[in-house]
Amino acid sequence: MADSKPLPSLDGDPKAAEAWLRDVFEIIVEEAIQKGTSTSEKVCEWKEPEELKQLLDLELQSCGEAQEQILEHCRAVIHYSVKTGHPRFFNQLFSGLDPHALAGRIITESLNTSQYTYEIAPVFVLMEEEVLKKLRALVGWSSGDGVFCPGGSISNMYAMNLARYRRYPDCKQKGLRALPPLAIFTSQECHYSINKGAAFLGFGIDSVRVVKADERGKMISEDLERQINLAEAEGAVPFLVCATSGTTVLGAFDPLNAVADVCQRHGLWLHVDAAWGGSVLLSQTHRHLLDGIQRADSVAWNPHKLLGAGLQCSALLLQDTSNLLKHCHESQASYLFQQDKFYDVALDTGDKVVQCGRRVDCLKLWLLWKAQGGQGLEQRIDRAFALAQYLVEEVKKREGFELIMEPEFVNVCFWFVPPSLRGKRESPDYSQRLSQVAPVLKERMVKEGSMMIGYQPHGTRGNFFRVIVANPMLTRADMDFLLDELERLGQDL
Amino acid sequence: MADSKPLPSLDGDPKAAEAWLRDVFEIIVEEAIQKGTSTSEKVCEWKEPEELKQLLDLELQSCGEAQEQILEHCRAVIHYSVKTGHPRFFNQLFSGLDPHALAGRIITESLNTSQYTYEIAPVFVLMEEEVLKKLRALVGWSSGDGVFCPGGSISNMYAMNLARYRRYPDCKQKGLRALPPLAIFTSQECHYSINKGAAFLGFGIDSVRVVKADERGKMISEDLERQINLAEAEGAVPFLVCATSGTTVLGAFDPLNAVADVCQRHGLWLHVDAAWGGSVLLSQTHRHLLDGIQRADSVAWNPHKLLGAGLQCSALLLQDTSNLLKHCHESQASYLFQQDKFYDVALDTGDKVVQCGRRVDCLKLWLLWKAQGGQGLEQRIDRAFALAQYLVEEVKKREGFELIMEPEFVNVCFWFVPPSLRGKRESPDYSQRLSQVAPVLKERMVKEGSMMIGYQPHGTRGNFFRVIVANPMLTRADMDFLLDELERLGQDL
Repeated sequence: MADSKPLPSLDGDPKAAEAWLRDVFEIIVEEAIQKGTSTSEKVCEWKEPEELKQLLDLELQSCGEAQEQILEHCRAVIHYSVKTGHPRFFNQLFSGLDPHALAGRIITESLNTSQYTYEIAPVFVLMEEEVLKKLRALVGWSSGDGVFCPGGSISNMYAMNLARYRRYPDCKQKGLRALPPLAIFTSQECHYSINKGAAFLGFGIDSVRVVKADERGKMISEDLERQINLAEAEGAVPFLVCATSGTTVLGAFDPLNAVADVCQRHGLWLHVDAAWGGSVLLSQTHRHLLDGIQRADSVAWNPHKLLGAGLQCSALLLQDTSNLLKHCHESQASYLFQQDKFYDVALDTGDKVVQCGRRVDCLKLWLLWKAQGGQGLEQRIDRAFALAQYLVEEVKKREGFELIMEPEFVNVCFWFVPPSLRGKRESPDYSQRLSQVAPVLKERMVKEGSMMIGYQPHGTRGNFFRVIVANPMLTRADMDFLLDELERLGQDL
Repeated sequence: MADSKPLPSLDGDPKAAEAWLRDVFEIIVEEAIQKGTSTSEKVCEWKEPEELKQLLDLELQSCGEAQEQILEHCRAVIHYSVKTGHPRFFNQLFSGLDPHALAGRIITESLNTSQYTYEIAPVFVLMEEEVLKKLRALVGWSSGDGVFCPGGSISNMYAMNLARYRRYPDCKQKGLRALPPLAIFTSQECHYSINKGAAFLGFGIDSVRVVKADERGKMISEDLERQINLAEAEGAVPFLVCATSGTTVLGAFDPLNAVADVCQRHGLWLHVDAAWGGSVLLSQTHRHLLDGIQRADSVAWNPHKLLGAGLQCSALLLQDTSNLLKHCHESQASYLFQQDKFYDVALDTGDKVVQCGRRVDCLKLWLLWKAQGGQGLEQRIDRAFALAQYLVEEVKKREGFELIMEPEFVNVCFWFVPPSLRGKRESPDYSQRLSQVAPVLKERMVKEGSMMIGYQPHGTRGNFFRVIVANPMLTRADMDFLLDELERLGQDL
C-alpha cells in the first residue's frame, strides 16, 4: 500500500534531508552572511524583470527537481536578492544582519508554531509576555497589555479599533452605522497606514482630520485643538489622536506632552505611532524625544526597524489593564480556546488578536536582547545618532550637498546638487532639474550595486535623498564612502 | 571616537559571528530536526508556566550574556517547545517539517526584506507572481490577481473589504455610515474570522447572517437563499457570501456550485474560505470536493496548512483583472512608491495591501514545489486522504471508539469511550461523562509527551477528538499507535 511506507525523496530519509539542509546552510553563510555583509561585495545585483525571470527559472512544474538543482536555486535566489544586511543599504528604516536576531528567526522557523495557545507555544507565550513587559517598562508603564502584530500598519489599526471599542463597545456587534460620525486626528506627516486603516476599518478616509505640522515635521498641538473643535462643530465625535514618534521621511517626533494635554482636555484616546522612533526609548541620551509617551493609551513600536530584530517584529503596547484587547477582539472559538483545559486558559492569547494563527515574533528580539543587553542596544542607538550627526557635518562641509534640515533622528535628508546646477538656484527651472537628479543617481547606484539610498519629494520640496543610519556595522568610513560615491556617480550631471 | 570602529562583541567580528551561527545550526539540527521529528522522542515537554519561566531564565537585563550562555538558551527554547514537525503532532491543521520549505524559510530570514517594491525584493516580487499564478490556475483561472496575507483570517478580511469596495467604492473615502446596512452570509460552520472581520471592518457582527449547515457541516444553499431574501425584506443589502472549503472541525466542503448559483442570482460576491481545503485542488482524485470554486470572486488558501509550507503562507486569490485590489487598498505614499523610478512601477506591489512592510511568504512554497513538483504534492495529499481513511476503518473496528461521521477530508472525528462508559449510552449522565474524557486524556498525553490531538465540543455533541492527518511522514503504524495510545491512556477511566 502506498500509505504503509514514508514517501520517496528526502521525505523518507532523515539523514539525506539533514545533509541537504547543511548544504543550504553553507550557501546561506557564504552568499547571505559573508558576501551579503561585506563592503567588497555588491549590495544588489540589478537585473531587468524579464532577464531575472529567466535567470531564476521560476516556473513550477509537475515533476520535482533534483536536490543539486534546488541548491542552485537557493544560491540564485540569494545572489539576485538585495542584501538588506549590507552596510551600504541605507534605503529603508531597517538595515543590518544581527547574528543573534537571525538565530532567533531561524529557530522560530524550525519550530513553526503559532502563538495562539500555551498548549502549542508554551515557551513563546511566556516569552512574548516578558518581552512586552520590557517594552512597556521603557514606555514608562509598570502594567498594561500588548501583542505582536504583523507590522506597524496593523498595530496602528488595532489602536483605532481599540479606541473605537472603548468609546462605543456596541460597535463590535452593531457596526459603525449605529454610531455618530467619528473623527481621527493625525498630522500631515503621519504614516500612510492611518488612512489605510481608516478605510479598512470602515471609518472612511474622510474621517481622518489632518493636523498641521511645523517646518520640522512636528504636529502643531494648537492646530490639533483647533481641528478637534472644528470637527465637533461639524457634528463629528473626536475619539482618537495618532501622534508620531519618528516620521518616515524627516524622522520628526511629535510633541507628546502637548498632544497629551489636548487629548486629556477632550477625553481622547492617544495612540503614538512609534514604529520607527520607539527604539530611542532605550537611549538615556535621546529618549527625551519621546517625553510624554507614558501618557499614551497605546504605542506601536517596531523593533524590526532600528533594533534590527528582523521582519516582522511589531509590538502594540497598551496602558490598559482591563483586558480591553481581548474583549475587543475575542470570539471564543470553542475548538481552540476550550475552557476545560488542564491549565490556566488565561495563557491562551489567541483571542487578543484578529488573526487566528499568529507567527512567533518575540524570540528574535529576546535573543538579541539577551546577547546585547539593554546597554548594548543603547550603545547601538547612541552610535547611530552619532554617525548620523557625523554625516550631517560632512554634508555641510562638502560642495554640492545641501541639507534639508538639521535632523533630530537618524534620517539624514539632503540634496545632491550636481556640478551643472551649482550656483544656479535663481534659475527658473532649478527645482525641477534638481528633482530629476536623485532618480538618476538612484538608477546608477542600483545598477552598479554600490549602495542603496531612498529618495522622495516632500511637501513643496523636490526629490531629495533620505539616508537612514541604522546598521550597527556602520563606521565613519561608510559615511565618507556614501558622499564620495554620490559625487562620483553625479559628477557628469 | 566611539563611532569610528565597529561595536564590540560579535558585531565587530564576522568570523566569530559565523562560527557562533554554525553552533546554533548544530543545535537546531539536533534538537528541532533530529529529535523534533523522531517518534522515539517526545512531541512536547510539558512544564507548568511558573516552572517553565524559571527554566528559561526569561528576564531581559542591562548586560549582555556570554555566547555560550546564549547557546544554552537556544537549546532550552527548542527543548521546551512543542514539536509541530513530529509525526505524533495531530493537534492543528498543520504538522510536519519539510526540509525544502524549511530551507525557504531560513533563506527568507537571512535576506530579511519586505515584499513592497521590486527595488528591494526583485526576486520575491517575481516569485510571488509566479506562485500566485500557479495557485490561480489550480482554482481554474487563467488570469486574475492576488497577494500573500499574514494568515487566513486577514485573507478573509481582505475579501470582505474588496466585496464592499466593488459594490460601494465611496466607502473607502466616506465610510460605512454613508452606506445602507449591509449583510454578509456564511454558514454556522464557518471560521470565526468572519465574525472577527465583520467587527474589525466596522460592519458589526450582527451584519453576519448565519446560514444553516446540514448534518455533515455543509452549507444548505436553500437556506442561504432564504436568508438573503429575509435580509432584503429587513432592509439590509446583501453583498457577500463566504463559503467554506474544509471547515475547521468536521472538514466539510460547502456545495460551491449550488452556492455560486445563489450568488449569481442575487449578484453577490462569492468568497471561498479554502484556507484548509484549498490544497485538495492539487489532487485529481479529490479536487471534486471544490467543484465550482472557479466561480468564486475570491479564494483564501493557506499552503502553510496541508502543504506544510510553514507559518505563514496564506494566499488571497482573485478572479478580478481590473486592479481592484490595488484601487481598494492604495494610498500612493510618495516616499515608497515613487512614480519616477527607473523601472516599471507596476512591479511595486505594496499598494495592494493594507500593510506597509510585508514579509516574504512565497519562497518556502516555491522551493517546496520545485522539490516535490505538483505530482509529489498530489501524492502527499492523496496519501493523507488514504491514511485518514485507514484511521476511520480502524476506529470502526475497535471497541471503545465511536466515529462522529464518515469524513470527507483528513479531519477524523471520534469519541473514545472508556471502559466504564461502554454500553452505558442510555445512562442519563452518559453525554456529560463522555465529554469529560477527552480533556483528561489530553492532559495525560501532553504530560507524557506521547502525542497531541485536539478536542472540542461541537453543536450538541460533547467533547470529541479531532485527529488531523496532515504530516507527510505519517504511516499506518502512526495511526495504530494513536489508537493504542488512547486505549492505554484511558484504560482506567
